Amino acid sequence: MPVTGLLDEIAGIGRNGATGGYNRFAFTPDDAALGEWFAAACAARGFEVTTDRCGNQWAWDGDPDAAQAAGRPGVVIGSHLDSVPDGGAFDGPLGVASAFAAVDALRAAGTVLDRPLGLVRFVDEEGARFGLACSGSRLITGTSAPDAVLALRDAAGTSYAEALGATGVDVQHAGRDADVLHRIGVFVELHVEQGRMLAQEPYQNPIGVAAAIKAHGRWRVDLPGRADHAGATLMQDRDDPMLALARLIPAVREAVLRHDALAGSGRGGTVGTVGTVGKVAVRPNAVNAIPSLVQAWLDVRSFEQDVVRAVVAELAASFPVVEESWTPTIVFDSALAERLSAALGGAPVIPTGAGHDAGILADAGIPAGMLFVRNPTGVSHSPAEHAEPDDCEAGARALAAVVADLCGASPATRRPATQAEPSGYRAVEGTEGGSPL
Amino acid sequence: MPVTGLLDEIAGIGRNGATGGYNRFAFTPDDAALGEWFAAACAARGFEVTTDRCGNQWAWDGDPDAAQAAGRPGVVIGSHLDSVPDGGAFDGPLGVASAFAAVDALRAAGTVLDRPLGLVRFVDEEGARFGLACSGSRLITGTSAPDAVLALRDAAGTSYAEALGATGVDVQHAGRDADVLHRIGVFVELHVEQGRMLAQEPYQNPIGVAAAIKAHGRWRVDLPGRADHAGATLMQDRDDPMLALARLIPAVREAVLRHDALAGSGRGGTVGTVGTVGKVAVRPNAVNAIPSLVQAWLDVRSFEQDVVRAVVAELAASFPVVEESWTPTIVFDSALAERLSAALGGAPVIPTGAGHDAGILADAGIPAGMLFVRNPTGVSHSPAEHAEPDDCEAGARALAAVVADLCGASPATRRPATQAEPSGYRAVEGTEGGSPL
Repeated sequence: MPVTGLLDEIAGIGRNGATGGYNRFAFTPDDAALGEWFAAACAARGFEVTTDRCGNQWAWDGDPDAAQAAGRPGVVIGSHLDSVPDGGAFDGPLGVASAFAAVDALRAAGTVLDRPLGLVRFVDEEGARFGLACSGSRLITGTSAPDAVLALRDAAGTSYAEALGATGVDVQHAGRDADVLHRIGVFVELHVEQGRMLAQEPYQNPIGVAAAIKAHGRWRVDLPGRADHAGATLMQDRDDPMLALARLIPAVREAVLRHDALAGSGRGGTVGTVGTVGKVAVRPNAVNAIPSLVQAWLDVRSFEQDVVRAVVAELAASFPVVEESWTPTIVFDSALAERLSAALGGAPVIPTGAGHDAGILADAGIPAGMLFVRNPTGVSHSPAEHAEPDDCEAGARALAAVVADLCGASPATRRPATQAEPSGYRAVEGTEGGSPL
Repeated sequence: MPVTGLLDEIAGIGRNGATGGYNRFAFTPDDAALGEWFAAACAARGFEVTTDRCGNQWAWDGDPDAAQAAGRPGVVIGSHLDSVPDGGAFDGPLGVASAFAAVDALRAAGTVLDRPLGLVRFVDEEGARFGLACSGSRLITGTSAPDAVLALRDAAGTSYAEALGATGVDVQHAGRDADVLHRIGVFVELHVEQGRMLAQEPYQNPIGVAAAIKAHGRWRVDLPGRADHAGATLMQDRDDPMLALARLIPAVREAVLRHDALAGSGRGGTVGTVGTVGKVAVRPNAVNAIPSLVQAWLDVRSFEQDVVRAVVAELAASFPVVEESWTPTIVFDSALAERLSAALGGAPVIPTGAGHDAGILADAGIPAGMLFVRNPTGVSHSPAEHAEPDDCEAGARALAAVVADLCGASPATRRPATQAEPSGYRAVEGTEGGSPL
């Protein structure tokens, strides 16, 4: 089935009719509907579906445990289905839909894979509900401590433990699962590009391969004031935290620009540092009340993690900055990236500023790579997020080609390879699973 | 019953256990529970309860229509029971509870009133849900056009018409009702002071009488941007509306201080101008998304309405300011204010920055006055809002004294007066109802 047809199947789930955007938040009824769709699509293709102890869904064609024991662990493709508030249709679902389309294409071509193939849907990649991005992959890899994640609360006061538990997961056992991780010889996540490098010179290519992900952190800034009446409280008697918010917002931008220029001088002029105040919570948020508290969330990223640290340290000198998450710079395995590029006829290898589950897996020592599909405007996390249908189908073909390469596939007219490992595969001891690269 | 005992009866309704504040919004189940309490308390005292075509509740002891026809229209006391988000326990409920306590005190003393006495609960005084303060009194007086009010929507998209209609009111007929208004010879609203004039020199008095209410308007400022990914969008490629918010907030403060100083020079140094950005809405309000839209609400007030206009005009030159409501400076009937003060042994007559239903009635030509109860910190619209129990009881006694005076009351040992009107009463033609002053 074409990628666009697969996306159409879930187009109505969590859609905001007014904006055309999506509100697909972790462990909600809409999220459950997406999970049911994923399971049904896997089952329809003969994949055996399981849910891990953190709520992520896995589906295997072949026996990944036997293959891992034999030193030929499987290849996993997939992504996530949740969204940011009022997000786009492609961020996440494109990778899952392309995985199904790639399976269909490989089978239509009669390709026989020499390793098990796995499909995965990671839960709560965006962190829209509980504030921690990639919590599903962080939990299963042990990158984040279960107690800390399970204690997070959404805006309504529901804990992560309560929400995850309500889906049927026994949260007592949420956390790292070596059995799940050992099955993953390599993980390849296809994703719409969040940026427009592929749409511009010098690349102008429908498909790219990820080189690295910016270091990325989230911080909360609590700005307390004194709640009071907006009409009866004289200007000189106020302790209004909105004024502090008004100082914070430009301070973030100025610190980012200054530290990036400092680090970037002699290195192309920039190290890709960005800083954003995208979320604000005002208490009580009434027109006629001076707020008692303004909370702002700060997202800072850079290819140079020390630059992120320098920006936040400068802000921390003037504002009460509390770290909520931190992911260092992720440089994807360069040999794997080169192999993915080669399998695609030399697709460009480009960096990204967006975090992904593939980055969490790479950070946990699991071989991981990413394919990007061209985004004509670069806009993402928005109803305007877009990829052309032709580029989406090119992405599915690219994912099929990469799977065929990594799985040591044989055309149907040939017997499966039984002698030497394909060039470039080697077992790596001491990492999660036997690495194919 | 003491005022504090009456307030205790509703202390659990709409309470936020975490902050101790109240969320009592118009036409919600909590609001309905407050309305049921009001009706039960009226009925228990033998008052006949009706709901007007705009949802406000009225209860009369005596026949207000016969009294109005006889040129002796009734006296109405009461206030509202709704709150701002996370508001205090006194703003509104103190006036209603004091009205019941005043009735009880008058009866306990055997006082016979020579005019009908009415109790009122106005709905949606704070405008917390639909953004328009005093909508109940605005609708019933015709101060605001029904179509405009009924079309307002809350944050969940529910219209005022839907919410009011769900309480059983036929919204087809929402709007001015001369029959209701004619019954009101005079309206006296008791309220916790929102400010601390009564707590300070030179007043230091538990009770005050309102002189005037600042002119007051609300404006919405829509700051559009381009939604995009917080990690992947370079700083120079952004159209981030948070930066505009950061310019707006200090601009409001600067404009208020400058125009107030200009107008106040030679008039005591200030005309009480205040400006607040207390409410902000960010779309999509995600940590990892540059917003597509930031909305800010602006509350500006002054004893000089031209100063409010000047502040907003200056801001409108740089920001897209849209008026949501406007109430001119309300100067309460000075003869009535002096009479209330005299009935209380010379209570201070003070101005206020807070809007009230009494101000809406006064603006509509209905004789109205207010009593204020001392607020030791001046804090209001906050869980920290407070009035001392002794001051609350003093308020109820003051309200009883004022009612006795305005109703031409006779001690139980005397017959009701039947000859001349009490000095100071006169019928006024061409205003709503026959005015007692």
